[in-house]
Amino acid sequence: MDIKVILDTLWVLVAGMLVFFMNLGFAAVESGFARSKNAVNILSKNFIVFAVSSLGFLVLGWGLMFGDGNGFIGMKGLFMASGLDNSPAVGDAYNGVYSAISWTGIPFWAKFFFQLVFCGTAATIVSGAVAERIKYISFIVFSFLLTLLVYPIVGHWIWGGGFLAQMGMWDFAGGTVVHSVGGWAALAGVILLGPRVGKYTKDGKIHPIPGHNLSLATIGAFVLWLGWFGFNPGSTMAADPVAISHILVTTNTAGIMAVLTATATAWLVVGKPDLGMSINGLLAGLVIITPGCAYVSVTSSMILGAIAGVLVVYAVLFFDKMKLDDPVGALAVHLVHGVLGTLSIGLFAQDGIAGVSTGNGLFFGGGLGLLGIQALGVVSVGAFTFISSFVIWYLIKKTIGIRVSLKEEIEGLDIGEHGNQAYPEFVTHRPSYSLISKDINTEIDDVSKKAI
Amino acid sequence: MDIKVILDTLWVLVAGMLVFFMNLGFAAVESGFARSKNAVNILSKNFIVFAVSSLGFLVLGWGLMFGDGNGFIGMKGLFMASGLDNSPAVGDAYNGVYSAISWTGIPFWAKFFFQLVFCGTAATIVSGAVAERIKYISFIVFSFLLTLLVYPIVGHWIWGGGFLAQMGMWDFAGGTVVHSVGGWAALAGVILLGPRVGKYTKDGKIHPIPGHNLSLATIGAFVLWLGWFGFNPGSTMAADPVAISHILVTTNTAGIMAVLTATATAWLVVGKPDLGMSINGLLAGLVIITPGCAYVSVTSSMILGAIAGVLVVYAVLFFDKMKLDDPVGALAVHLVHGVLGTLSIGLFAQDGIAGVSTGNGLFFGGGLGLLGIQALGVVSVGAFTFISSFVIWYLIKKTIGIRVSLKEEIEGLDIGEHGNQAYPEFVTHRPSYSLISKDINTEIDDVSKKAI
Amino acid sequence: MDIKVILDTLWVLVAGMLVFFMNLGFAAVESGFARSKNAVNILSKNFIVFAVSSLGFLVLGWGLMFGDGNGFIGMKGLFMASGLDNSPAVGDAYNGVYSAISWTGIPFWAKFFFQLVFCGTAATIVSGAVAERIKYISFIVFSFLLTLLVYPIVGHWIWGGGFLAQMGMWDFAGGTVVHSVGGWAALAGVILLGPRVGKYTKDGKIHPIPGHNLSLATIGAFVLWLGWFGFNPGSTMAADPVAISHILVTTNTAGIMAVLTATATAWLVVGKPDLGMSINGLLAGLVIITPGCAYVSVTSSMILGAIAGVLVVYAVLFFDKMKLDDPVGALAVHLVHGVLGTLSIGLFAQDGIAGVSTGNGLFFGGGLGLLGIQALGVVSVGAFTFISSFVIWYLIKKTIGIRVSLKEEIEGLDIGEHGNQAYPEFVTHRPSYSLISKDINTEIDDVSKKAI
Repeated sequence: MDIKVILDTLWVLVAGMLVFFMNLGFAAVESGFARSKNAVNILSKNFIVFAVSSLGFLVLGWGLMFGDGNGFIGMKGLFMASGLDNSPAVGDAYNGVYSAISWTGIPFWAKFFFQLVFCGTAATIVSGAVAERIKYISFIVFSFLLTLLVYPIVGHWIWGGGFLAQMGMWDFAGGTVVHSVGGWAALAGVILLGPRVGKYTKDGKIHPIPGHNLSLATIGAFVLWLGWFGFNPGSTMAADPVAISHILVTTNTAGIMAVLTATATAWLVVGKPDLGMSINGLLAGLVIITPGCAYVSVTSSMILGAIAGVLVVYAVLFFDKMKLDDPVGALAVHLVHGVLGTLSIGLFAQDGIAGVSTGNGLFFGGGLGLLGIQALGVVSVGAFTFISSFVIWYLIKKTIGIRVSLKEEIEGLDIGEHGNQAYPEFVTHRPSYSLISKDINTEIDDVSKKAI
Repeated sequence: MDIKVILDTLWVLVAGMLVFFMNLGFAAVESGFARSKNAVNILSKNFIVFAVSSLGFLVLGWGLMFGDGNGFIGMKGLFMASGLDNSPAVGDAYNGVYSAISWTGIPFWAKFFFQLVFCGTAATIVSGAVAERIKYISFIVFSFLLTLLVYPIVGHWIWGGGFLAQMGMWDFAGGTVVHSVGGWAALAGVILLGPRVGKYTKDGKIHPIPGHNLSLATIGAFVLWLGWFGFNPGSTMAADPVAISHILVTTNTAGIMAVLTATATAWLVVGKPDLGMSINGLLAGLVIITPGCAYVSVTSSMILGAIAGVLVVYAVLFFDKMKLDDPVGALAVHLVHGVLGTLSIGLFAQDGIAGVSTGNGLFFGGGLGLLGIQALGVVSVGAFTFISSFVIWYLIKKTIGIRVSLKEEIEGLDIGEHGNQAYPEFVTHRPSYSLISKDINTEIDDVSKKAI
Repeated sequence: MDIKVILDTLWVLVAGMLVFFMNLGFAAVESGFARSKNAVNILSKNFIVFAVSSLGFLVLGWGLMFGDGNGFIGMKGLFMASGLDNSPAVGDAYNGVYSAISWTGIPFWAKFFFQLVFCGTAATIVSGAVAERIKYISFIVFSFLLTLLVYPIVGHWIWGGGFLAQMGMWDFAGGTVVHSVGGWAALAGVILLGPRVGKYTKDGKIHPIPGHNLSLATIGAFVLWLGWFGFNPGSTMAADPVAISHILVTTNTAGIMAVLTATATAWLVVGKPDLGMSINGLLAGLVIITPGCAYVSVTSSMILGAIAGVLVVYAVLFFDKMKLDDPVGALAVHLVHGVLGTLSIGLFAQDGIAGVSTGNGLFFGGGLGLLGIQALGVVSVGAFTFISSFVIWYLIKKTIGIRVSLKEEIEGLDIGEHGNQAYPEFVTHRPSYSLISKDINTEIDDVSKKAI
């Protein structure tokens, strides 16, 4: 067999495994940032979401995304599980980039697995934003529909040879396809769900709700960091040593700069170097470089990362001000920086910087054209994803319901949804559930202050 | 050097590292599912078991398993550590499969490491089933003998060119060699140890003993999931892109289907979507596909996974009814599904589905022959492993003893065996040890109710 | 593109990712071995240290280490971030070893990333030794200067073609360059910081301070174990299957022997098989084999590991006797065994054992020459690193200060430095901080006994 195919397959599969491992990272960060009374629920959501995504993407998603079709949707290879290969042929417009060393040389199931773990990431991003008040079954249903329908359609536009790809929009590793899609879907959910009890009280105050386990959250952050080394460099989908090495370093450099500036910003703004902000800084830096990691220089990645680290702090504060309650900062990280990163290609792209031809961004003599196309992509994907997600969430709300009862939310979703506790032996400062739930008929606002 | 050898070596070593990493997964799942008072003991067991296995397999195990010999036992390369290569020559019957691209092309120490991590897995499976009452030293001695003698002999029969291999039995990645061997050895230990104090009381009740840390258990589950992507696809022991990709997807598909059906079954049977059952569902799905992952289609892997997820719930309940106390469900996962997966090849095998020639199973026109051979293998391995493990456990019981004292069990093995605590600063709901141990001379049954 | 370059790049990057992952391992081991009141601080230090190292090494470190220059220092490629390749040309003396398959064939950024993760490891080693009393900002400043200046200069001597490389000193994977440098820098810090309050009291007693979370520490240990499979075998910096396989097995064998002998030694000396000692045994075994992993046989690795496991127990006791307070045993592990491992090459080296030509050590007919050169390297690096680190720590102490206030130390650095808690919901046995700090004006010694 062709040595190149073997090399490409090994690289794509190893990178795909690293991306899969991000499921652990998200589970740990999200549950660590939430309260112990909801830990089982969050872990369960993050555990089952990859199963749900796998089924959705296997049954229908892959075909919609990569099956030949029109500019809007794929139409071959639906309901497959048969191994039929409908992915673009060698030389197709896929990702625009590696036509010479096209990813289509690798076996079908290798492509499928790599695309699957990206699909799963989009779904898992939603999990954190809707945490601590969503019904378990409702999250499962939404994730299934997101990965069955919404993600694949948007993905087709950019990565499946659809209309945005044809117009010349670039999104190397999924700043728009994965992170902004997860972010828009999360935003729709957050709006329809409303904030957690006790987060914003009638007196206009915003109450911080500290996470229950920062060791767990930090472990998760390191795992995500590692996973991103598969996410971005793996998106070459070919063992191109120059491109992979370049992307690895732009990815890491943006991440570390954002850790530094986010820590410094928190230190200056809040007065203390908050670990949660350092972690969200890392993630913002990694997201902002994701779409352009192969198109910009290492120096540009330093600048982008430094910007992300500052912005993420203000973005977290902004969403709180808007009373959009996002327990883990997923909107500030994935939505804001997925969008910014996609736009940044229009500014910072340098033709051929990692052996990839994209044209130049505004700062490197490329004019406004690329920036315009990127912006069009951002808007198209945002509008479609937000609206379709909103409709799905809304239908769920009107049918099986979307939010647990007030009593259940106060007692914790672990008991209400799962009949379980994450740490049953440990004594907590949290007031006994029964004590609070006695007040359940008093003013919500009184209860809510005690609930966090 | 031959490029093919380099590619095969890189793949085998990376896959081997992923399998090694499963040690973390088992440690986290098992300690998370147990009580905090025994966490240090379980972590210690899972930490030292790979050291013990490595020594046993290095000193004698490898030679017994792969040294040329007869159909029952290998006889070359014993007491080696010298690097002498006694593995089957190119073209040998090893695994029956990759004779053309035989694994023997890779360097000796690469083969050794890959086989070592499988041997270590068999030993670590035992750990969970005997948890919370076994003496530390007794577990160490058993593990050493298991990996020095029992595992290698059985392994020789199937993977070392022994009589089962010669008869045409298939076990691609170790459903029988690894999982059922670990399961049978665990069953013998569970029988001789007896249940934990307080688990089954005289009034005929079965008392659930919740794990102390489901975050830890979930982290472990994700790590095992990742590790399985080395375990199964790595068992090609060659960088065959088509086979690896196929196996990766059958493995993941069986796992995710089992997560879904186990969660649903628990929801229906117990009334709540229990996270522990979701995790054991995953593991059951991964085990059932292990022996046939290269021989069955993705569609078949969906079916097998779906079955495993349902069965594992009932299997857990069954072993509890039999008063076989297995704190983590290792018997329900590894023994039951290792056996079923091995038999499933006789039903679902499709000749050449991943480029591997096995003949067809019953459902694909292959008749009953293959099923019969698989059953013979299951029975032979089961009988030998169970009996020899029982003898070893029995000898240990009669000499150094097998079970900690009642007082130690109630106080926790961490203090008794290790003079340590996993979380010394945290206050637990558990009644103070001294309080319970005052009752130590009263009826066991009275004590035992307080002990969990 | 040349297949060999692709293979080498893939291997180096995957190995580099494994080494990167050790950051998680160090974070988990160090925070698990410390008290919960300092967990956020330790996690924050370990989280930001790789960011700081990345910046230091990118801006100046790489050029000082690998830029052409003289025997003492590199002088090209400083302040780069421009991608200029100043690494040794093919055939240079780099590492002395792989001149035929020189690492310089791989792309610049691949080399950079691999070297970066080693630099980061040296800095993270310091973190554990100075834990539980160092100011966050002071640690950040020290880490930046260590990775910007000290590490690269020493690294140049041995890995950058400097005077020690020219004399024929061997250090395959960084026993001296990484582990001893981290150890010497830590020693200087420990001396200038002084011990934690309550550790050594006026009555001459040494008070053990148990870690708060041994599950976390054990997870970390497994991750470090895995990471070492990148650290040592990856240091081939080429996909040489024979060398990689050999190194993987010497590495694992030294580690497992040290687990066994450290556990046994603790059992004999302390009376219980202490899990902390088993973990430090593993690390000592992995460190001692690091410099010679490619130069000694598997049998020699067994002997070296067995020695390390015994020595580490006594080394921990020794540093405590010297009142050098090292909360995690970093000096006993990295300094002692980094030095011993480097010297062991002079005794155990076997020419060509893994296809690498080094000459023979004393035990294999090589005379005392090699041992002398190794000793010279150990002394040169030790003197330079200790003195320069001492100067840096001293300047920090005299300017921004090095140690938190007594009140802050007793209350915990998490609140004082970060305004945060790792586990805010959990009730601990620790006396309320306000209660102790009332006594803050009484005798330190009285306070200190209550503080641990």
